[in-house]
Amino acid sequence: MRSDYCGNINANHAGQEVTLCGWVNKRRDLGGLIFIDLRDRAGIVQVVFEPDHQEVLETANSLRNEFCVKVTGKVRLRPEGQINKDMATGEVEIVGTALSIFNRSAPLPLDWNQENSEEQRLKYRYLDLRRPVMNDRLQFRAKVTGQVRRFLEDEGFLDIETPILTKATPEGARDYLVPSRTHKGEFFALPQSPQLFKQLLMMAGMDKYYQIVKCFRDEDLRADRQPEFTQIDLETTFLDADGVMDITERLVRQVFKNLMDVDLGDFPRMTYADAMKHYGSDKPDLRNPLKLIDVDHILKDVEFKVFNGPANDPNGRVTVICVPGGASLSRKQLDEYTKFVGIYGAKGMAWLKVNEKGKGMDGLQSPILKFLNESVVEQLLSETNANDGDILLFGADNATVVTEALGALRLKVGEDFDLLEGDWRPLWVVDFPMFEEFDGQLHALHHPFTAPRDLTPEQLKEQAATALSNAYDMVLNGVELGGGSVRIHDQTMQSTVFELLGIDEEEAELKFGFLLEALRYGAPPHAGLAFGLDRMVMLMTGASSIRDVMAFPKTTTAACPLTDAPGAANPQQLEELAIRTVAKASDSASDE
Amino acid sequence: MRSDYCGNINANHAGQEVTLCGWVNKRRDLGGLIFIDLRDRAGIVQVVFEPDHQEVLETANSLRNEFCVKVTGKVRLRPEGQINKDMATGEVEIVGTALSIFNRSAPLPLDWNQENSEEQRLKYRYLDLRRPVMNDRLQFRAKVTGQVRRFLEDEGFLDIETPILTKATPEGARDYLVPSRTHKGEFFALPQSPQLFKQLLMMAGMDKYYQIVKCFRDEDLRADRQPEFTQIDLETTFLDADGVMDITERLVRQVFKNLMDVDLGDFPRMTYADAMKHYGSDKPDLRNPLKLIDVDHILKDVEFKVFNGPANDPNGRVTVICVPGGASLSRKQLDEYTKFVGIYGAKGMAWLKVNEKGKGMDGLQSPILKFLNESVVEQLLSETNANDGDILLFGADNATVVTEALGALRLKVGEDFDLLEGDWRPLWVVDFPMFEEFDGQLHALHHPFTAPRDLTPEQLKEQAATALSNAYDMVLNGVELGGGSVRIHDQTMQSTVFELLGIDEEEAELKFGFLLEALRYGAPPHAGLAFGLDRMVMLMTGASSIRDVMAFPKTTTAACPLTDAPGAANPQQLEELAIRTVAKASDSASDE
Repeated sequence: MRSDYCGNINANHAGQEVTLCGWVNKRRDLGGLIFIDLRDRAGIVQVVFEPDHQEVLETANSLRNEFCVKVTGKVRLRPEGQINKDMATGEVEIVGTALSIFNRSAPLPLDWNQENSEEQRLKYRYLDLRRPVMNDRLQFRAKVTGQVRRFLEDEGFLDIETPILTKATPEGARDYLVPSRTHKGEFFALPQSPQLFKQLLMMAGMDKYYQIVKCFRDEDLRADRQPEFTQIDLETTFLDADGVMDITERLVRQVFKNLMDVDLGDFPRMTYADAMKHYGSDKPDLRNPLKLIDVDHILKDVEFKVFNGPANDPNGRVTVICVPGGASLSRKQLDEYTKFVGIYGAKGMAWLKVNEKGKGMDGLQSPILKFLNESVVEQLLSETNANDGDILLFGADNATVVTEALGALRLKVGEDFDLLEGDWRPLWVVDFPMFEEFDGQLHALHHPFTAPRDLTPEQLKEQAATALSNAYDMVLNGVELGGGSVRIHDQTMQSTVFELLGIDEEEAELKFGFLLEALRYGAPPHAGLAFGLDRMVMLMTGASSIRDVMAFPKTTTAACPLTDAPGAANPQQLEELAIRTVAKASDSASDE
Repeated sequence: MRSDYCGNINANHAGQEVTLCGWVNKRRDLGGLIFIDLRDRAGIVQVVFEPDHQEVLETANSLRNEFCVKVTGKVRLRPEGQINKDMATGEVEIVGTALSIFNRSAPLPLDWNQENSEEQRLKYRYLDLRRPVMNDRLQFRAKVTGQVRRFLEDEGFLDIETPILTKATPEGARDYLVPSRTHKGEFFALPQSPQLFKQLLMMAGMDKYYQIVKCFRDEDLRADRQPEFTQIDLETTFLDADGVMDITERLVRQVFKNLMDVDLGDFPRMTYADAMKHYGSDKPDLRNPLKLIDVDHILKDVEFKVFNGPANDPNGRVTVICVPGGASLSRKQLDEYTKFVGIYGAKGMAWLKVNEKGKGMDGLQSPILKFLNESVVEQLLSETNANDGDILLFGADNATVVTEALGALRLKVGEDFDLLEGDWRPLWVVDFPMFEEFDGQLHALHHPFTAPRDLTPEQLKEQAATALSNAYDMVLNGVELGGGSVRIHDQTMQSTVFELLGIDEEEAELKFGFLLEALRYGAPPHAGLAFGLDRMVMLMTGASSIRDVMAFPKTTTAACPLTDAPGAANPQQLEELAIRTVAKASDSASDE
């Protein structure tokens, strides 16, 4: 029906006749002429209707915003003064000689010139997606998936589909359930990830698997999460951690290079221990130059319990962030930071302003100055490299609280003081602990199929609390892009890990019997990784929510205002499924 | 860990050292040597362990089938007499100089040398998929999806994901339901297709959409169907039926050319009416040269009610298949065909053997010969082109029964007599009726969003029963590869179709309110198509079931013997979902 996209028309087309289809983005009268901006997914071009095509002009006169039309006309260079440099097509305009209207439009329920509520935007998603910024994001996302697929397929990865209707997983409480009609009273679960299936594919000898796949988690959506999200999921056989990191690093580098002309360079590697120590996070944003500097050894003898307590406690930590220019912070701003670290459990936040180093103690300002002496202060300033005008912000408590609180404070201060350097700072975080202990029980830091680093099952049992896993996370600008690990391919090791996690034999058999069985038949060494596609695209497009890079996301209460899902079920259908609802909408999310 | 795939080693590698990883496909001792066939996804290569590496030989001696190992060795040309031409690697062998065992294997529960039960194959799917024939099918499937994606992306299609958790569709009874936790008592449905979402994407101006996407249908699985299946789904804006057919025909042609070196040529087009008339099917297998030849006009005056009844009834049909060489059919075989057409409701099957045409009536043999006369017979033989040794098989009943029964008989006879000609015979079937009428109500032949051909809403109302739709099905070798249509983009037309389908305004608003609303805002003309990927790959690989081209299919009772899904749900989880099961396993499928 058309000869080109609107957005592709440029000076090279001058003199040619083109036929374009699209939507009226704007319409205006001017001295007997009618101008419209015609929009399609490639962009916007100006069309002018002139009186020498009277009938066409009359039709054009009836156009309103968002009418869907076809225009034929000749491309003409705009006179010098009318060139619009902000438009890709701004050097030309089309002189319309034919015009037909496919469909009229009622006035839009969304006003694109102002912020619309999320609810409205989702209800009229098909209109919200017409906005060039949104349209471009989905186009960009498609380019990302296309690039990822080509890279992986060229590397020999096979796109293999795993089931959506499957068995409940260990983290079952957050599974979406699907009642079975043929097996009444029983349920499928939607997968939180294809983890076990991809491992089985390696045992099946598929060698290199990938999938861009929907995963599901029925969790509270306060954060920027969605009930269904998309993973770039991959798994390889006969490759170690370095092998997987190499492939996936090249993948991400190529996508950034090809789509954004950004060269990410080689990704540095950092141990989990170093990340927590220096950045208070297992996904450090390296654009932020601030570091946590441990000062336990300096403060362990000061007469101030807040400091000397944690400094002398093996589970304590005293650390400091030195903020360049931070001496200008007002008391009120410091109170806000104190409140901020309180969110993470910190009971307070000591600070020390460095007004004029040369003046010794007199050049400093701090509510706790009285607890410090010159030698302590000198050492503090020296080890934190503090300069005049800086401030030291202290965290002193048990290590977990300090690390988390100061890690968060570091990010906040970095933004507040506009300290971020560089656009893209990727890294690998490695050498994670196998387990974390809470509630008197070991829990897998990644998942129970992750292999330990260089340990036999016996050794793992002996040193479970300190054992490192063969896992790796790819982090970019403080966001975890993806994570993976070498998997356990030895049955004894797998049983040992289940045992350490407090999963008894019966439970292990019930939940993972098929995996343990599969490990009996020559299971190969294998390793893999999964990226969060939504988050990756969000980061690359600069969108502020993953909802802005999904075509039809759900609201934060997991509903779809467009289709009005979820909804009541047909009673007859429930009967066939042999289930009954037992609660009323009265305790639904809207009332919580 | 390795230098190449087993299956890639050939004479060019002679003299080189290689390291290979894989599974022991076979092991045998021969005069102090140990031979193993080492297998990976690329193929099998022979490795020989010789006494001059005694330690390695001893390890090799411990190998059993399906051990997972790494072998290093030198590639050696086999002596002339030992070349195995059935193996891609049959010109060479590896002389093993190092061997390590990643994992031992218990004896397999599947015997690859015999047919295993479907249940066993699915329970040990990871072993079943190690079989080269199965492994190759999944590899081939991945190549198909890769080719499809590249073609469509190069044509400007955007891969856009649509939701899996969505609203129940009109054919809701077969929807899988998913209880919502945040909206208790309410349910999502898993999509039977992304139909409405892709239409909304066109209204959003995405222009060209595609997705290789899981769809779900909770139906009885007697036929070769699966609860979850995969569609190649696409939709375009500003293209008519010819435009969509052109793109998708080129797509399929390219996939066949690139992956099978098959040139499908231009696809002929056939109207639905012709397909039913000549082939008794809306998806004719054109490899089969038999046709249904209508003989109502010849038989309308014979004194045989079975013939003259339907021949004179406007709703009746009398048709015949002429089977070359069919005169050799025994009475018993003919009885079997009679039974066969009975499945489709035919009350009997008349037949006429042409033993010797030259002898007139004497050269014929038929239980109904007495009802026919020479002129009738002459006309029959002439219009069916019957030759000596042929048989005419008759269908006479109401048109629907005859068409279906003889359409099926045509396929059966074609196979029994080995009549199929050519390997690949694609075609388009077009000009479908908009509606079919049964139970006193019109039903959409495709779906309710299909546009009629060249009719206004008023005209459609007037001639609903005979109206043709702008739909098209791609058929290959008697299998419907895909189907699509131009969609309705006019609100009045859409409301009219709902009305004709007996969907009242309230129901239309409830189920499709968002679609009708969307049609108010400049909806563009759009059209699309969806292919059944599983069926396409099954056809291309010559597999006999779609289960053989899926990694982890369900059984015919929609269960997964591998993971043992579906299963009982955690009671606490059901409580959180506010649902209760009301039936016991006693009426589950296993007892039906």
